[in-house]
Amino acid sequence: MSGNQDLLQRSLNSVWHPCTQMKHHERYPLVPISRGEGAWLFDTDGKGYLDAVSSWWVNLFGHNQPVIKDAIKAQLDQLEHVMLAGFTHGPVVELSEKLSLLTGLGHAFYGSDGASATEIALKMSFHYWRNIGQPKKTKFISLQNSYHGETLGALSVTDVAIFKDTYAPLILQSAQMPSPDSRLAEAGESEEAFALRCAEALEIYAAEHHAELAAFIIEPLVQGAAGMAMYHPVYLRRAREICDRYNIHLIADEIAVGFGRTGTLFACEQAGGKVSDIADFVCLSKGITGGYLPLSVVLTTDDVYQAFYHDQTAKGFLHSHSYTGNPLACSAALATLKLFETTNVLGNNQKTAQQLLAAVQAYDLPLGHIRQRGMITAFEVETSNPQFAQHCYTAALRHGLLLRPIANTVYWMPPYCLNAAEIDHLVQSTQTAILESMACS
Amino acid sequence: MSGNQDLLQRSLNSVWHPCTQMKHHERYPLVPISRGEGAWLFDTDGKGYLDAVSSWWVNLFGHNQPVIKDAIKAQLDQLEHVMLAGFTHGPVVELSEKLSLLTGLGHAFYGSDGASATEIALKMSFHYWRNIGQPKKTKFISLQNSYHGETLGALSVTDVAIFKDTYAPLILQSAQMPSPDSRLAEAGESEEAFALRCAEALEIYAAEHHAELAAFIIEPLVQGAAGMAMYHPVYLRRAREICDRYNIHLIADEIAVGFGRTGTLFACEQAGGKVSDIADFVCLSKGITGGYLPLSVVLTTDDVYQAFYHDQTAKGFLHSHSYTGNPLACSAALATLKLFETTNVLGNNQKTAQQLLAAVQAYDLPLGHIRQRGMITAFEVETSNPQFAQHCYTAALRHGLLLRPIANTVYWMPPYCLNAAEIDHLVQSTQTAILESMACS
Repeated sequence: MSGNQDLLQRSLNSVWHPCTQMKHHERYPLVPISRGEGAWLFDTDGKGYLDAVSSWWVNLFGHNQPVIKDAIKAQLDQLEHVMLAGFTHGPVVELSEKLSLLTGLGHAFYGSDGASATEIALKMSFHYWRNIGQPKKTKFISLQNSYHGETLGALSVTDVAIFKDTYAPLILQSAQMPSPDSRLAEAGESEEAFALRCAEALEIYAAEHHAELAAFIIEPLVQGAAGMAMYHPVYLRRAREICDRYNIHLIADEIAVGFGRTGTLFACEQAGGKVSDIADFVCLSKGITGGYLPLSVVLTTDDVYQAFYHDQTAKGFLHSHSYTGNPLACSAALATLKLFETTNVLGNNQKTAQQLLAAVQAYDLPLGHIRQRGMITAFEVETSNPQFAQHCYTAALRHGLLLRPIANTVYWMPPYCLNAAEIDHLVQSTQTAILESMACS
Repeated sequence: MSGNQDLLQRSLNSVWHPCTQMKHHERYPLVPISRGEGAWLFDTDGKGYLDAVSSWWVNLFGHNQPVIKDAIKAQLDQLEHVMLAGFTHGPVVELSEKLSLLTGLGHAFYGSDGASATEIALKMSFHYWRNIGQPKKTKFISLQNSYHGETLGALSVTDVAIFKDTYAPLILQSAQMPSPDSRLAEAGESEEAFALRCAEALEIYAAEHHAELAAFIIEPLVQGAAGMAMYHPVYLRRAREICDRYNIHLIADEIAVGFGRTGTLFACEQAGGKVSDIADFVCLSKGITGGYLPLSVVLTTDDVYQAFYHDQTAKGFLHSHSYTGNPLACSAALATLKLFETTNVLGNNQKTAQQLLAAVQAYDLPLGHIRQRGMITAFEVETSNPQFAQHCYTAALRHGLLLRPIANTVYWMPPYCLNAAEIDHLVQSTQTAILESMACS
């Protein structure tokens, strides 16, 4: 038995893997990973896989990244953790200040899971309206096909049937607005015109229901779990205007799209200005630590913060997680921001993105809806194979590539450190994997 | 301006601290911590504080613990992270196997926040009953004054008014059973008799409502946020019998009490046998990494696991968090377990606990309900000062001690590495802090 086979059987026996029907692993083996280096993951038999999904969209600067690694090691020699109620420490302060400057949102509240960030933003918005004397504003809205996490509060604004429907009796009702996903535009309708049409529907709903609406939560520019649905930034500007007009908070869930994924440091910036010009709250996680450690944060405005600042304890935001502001995770985040400051990563990514888009456009394959936002490139594969996603994933693994299609959507969301040879491997292996999985088998 | 004052002002400006009415910090300054060593935290001016609450109950073997620190550093040179859907790695497999052996619960599902573990257990229980054809079993019950986290699903089974009442319109209804908290026993009633009386109330409720009950979630032996409420282990045995009789899952939330806190590795063991003899699910977090990194896990039975094992994707448990099974956090957890294996920590803790209890009993102070479970020692202070908790906290800080009373309950929950001089400091400084805060000021 190889090292791989031993570890994978032990894993099936003891680990309940996330987002997985475990029985499917009878046919599709797990891959046991022993080390990472740059854009590559290596299994226990030494085989390499180019990590084209950045390990669930978390890795930014590659695996075994020396700057981030050294920052965590240095912090380990200083202070691994202290509770953040009543206490503070350098890394959490420095990180909060930097995130405040970068987003324009000046108050940072921390968790560890992305779903916890969604929960924090929803609770803060709800509590804000109570604190300022508008207790009827209790409801949330989100976009169709949105994903904001799977704890029960986060699920209430998520709209992916396979994650949500089972738990319906446990979940708060929320309304979903038409998604500006440009794949849904009518023939001949521009991406911008479709986004404006969807914003009109949002305005009609807001006009009717604003008295009970606390917040509108949205994934800016790209709805990841919907299949890398992309939309025109004008939707964000219009959503902000509508939320202003009707006194509704706008929560930008940049958990997946933040930290350079869409070409700008934060996706909201593409609607003009800073995150604070679009959002009252921003949720960040995933890439915030460069893919090293769990950390999430909600940043918000002075206005929101002041509504909780009061002599009464109960008017405060008393939410907590034990590891809030963990110094090790904050140090990883500071090192990640330092890499943005000291390298021309966003500029280099533009060149990489152009090469990736050109490569897809040159494919001789039956593709539709080729689209890109920064370092997220996606397209639809026209195939009659109902198991295309699973087959393509498995074929890609055979060819040394971690690719994870969502239904018929193939996407690339790689680390930012791809070199020319790696781009070539990504392009070639993707093509091969698609060709091998077009037909039913 | 000292280093302390500079950092604390910057923290107030940028960090929204958890579980805090931020306005109170106008009177009670934050403490900025720069390093830790053993049981001590040191502020930026070099002053030391004995960490008598283990930084919100997470630290086990002290700060700057060499075994845990070195394990994380070694893992940093190997693999920092890989997604756990479709992939696996040594640390998560090894940790799951060890936890399975220790608890008797063989399938481990991971998150990062403790609240996420509660959410996972609730969703799994609910989904289990649907999968086996009992979709009417949708409701949860918990104990009065229980705490299971503050995301919306976790809040639905939490029963601490200050954390929950504000959010009532967002929260699923659940019923609370009488708490066996021995402070609530009638005069002359033994702890055990009271626990049995509370179990009778549970049985009456279960008999009437079992058709709609999915699970009973409980903090075994000690309800932390309730003010270190302690109860007789017979309650756990009876609860298990009742849950068996009426087909209700029992979820043991050992997030705060696991990993030796109550004298045994897991609190459930004091009811006889392994965790699996009491619980269908156990939630672990906090001490699991020795207080280093955020990690949470739900372990459950073969029976539960098999109910999800099916050809249909939707019968699987599709919940996920990006950093599920993070290798760095798993390595910290493995090092923590190694410390339990290679040192006589539980035996040494018995001696420490005896000294702590004897010291409290020797206090010449107006105390009531002196109680202890392993390394958790608590008592009530009879005082007319309505702000006793805040004053005692502040006084303790002056005397180099991190003590965080809950209302009139003073408790110790220190790291397991206290030496004789540190025990003496803990005992003396606590007495001084209590004396200085007995009267209103």
